[in-house]
Amino acid sequence: MKWNEVSSEQCSVARVSAVLGDRWTLVILSECFLGVRRFEHFKERLDIPRTTLSTRLQRLEDHGVLERRLYQEGPDRHEYRLTPKGVALYPVLSTIVTWGDTYYSDEAGPPILRKHVECGHDIQPVLACPECRNDITPRQMSARKRPDGPGQQPVRRGPITG
Amino acid sequence: MKWNEVSSEQCSVARVSAVLGDRWTLVILSECFLGVRRFEHFKERLDIPRTTLSTRLQRLEDHGVLERRLYQEGPDRHEYRLTPKGVALYPVLSTIVTWGDTYYSDEAGPPILRKHVECGHDIQPVLACPECRNDITPRQMSARKRPDGPGQQPVRRGPITG
Repeated sequence: MKWNEVSSEQCSVARVSAVLGDRWTLVILSECFLGVRRFEHFKERLDIPRTTLSTRLQRLEDHGVLERRLYQEGPDRHEYRLTPKGVALYPVLSTIVTWGDTYYSDEAGPPILRKHVECGHDIQPVLACPECRNDITPRQMSARKRPDGPGQQPVRRGPITG
Repeated sequence: MKWNEVSSEQCSVARVSAVLGDRWTLVILSECFLGVRRFEHFKERLDIPRTTLSTRLQRLEDHGVLERRLYQEGPDRHEYRLTPKGVALYPVLSTIVTWGDTYYSDEAGPPILRKHVECGHDIQPVLACPECRNDITPRQMSARKRPDGPGQQPVRRGPITG
């Protein structure tokens, strides 16, 4: 085992979990991808305490995931829009939905169907290799430190997954 | 706007966030995919309080994401292994890493490189359509309630993303 050479502290998960690692934050982001923008709408739909919602939106704004835009003056009212960095979270939310659909749906199936409008099929997006276009499984992936960092050798051939 | 017809409470995000919506949980899962299995190893690598680690591992076990297996008797010692349901979280962790690599790397690039062993390329996995094999962007996806539920009409054509 060489896992002692690669730490998730070094990798991106720890950094990202500081932004996303919160139950409400994931649900708020999901609402954003459904087109929800306004404080009162988030609040009504999620039945979330005002302070909790306010804190989470502020943090997402601080991290550049959402931006506030004025949509009404006197009194000023803002709405929350996904920035490009926020839109780039779509694969994260999408894979969460897929996992939830697989393991947390009732017997009738997923509560929401997703269609790939481009080809017209109801699908669940898959993880693919941008080079060979094949589906990716965890055992086909290896991880190593960046060559200019300390410790250049490959650290594993596929994770140990079970 | 028809977002009032689809709620993320109905969809899988709320259910999943009860399992994953925690900073430590995401980092612990990332360690699992690197092959870490033992309590003391998680503890050393993450510098996490024992009680916090214990609680998180127990919850992942309760949800069937990890299972404990005996690896030593007298005294009995267990290790934590990803179940198939746990392995199925790979796309979630992978897309989190990709997003973190994009927005939280230092100037030299991502701290860890990932290789698709099957084709030999260093890659970041992408989200693809299993039918047409094209890459997926959020604007190409639509969502609607399951036809046998209340409200059968499509609720949007692509999320409003900015």
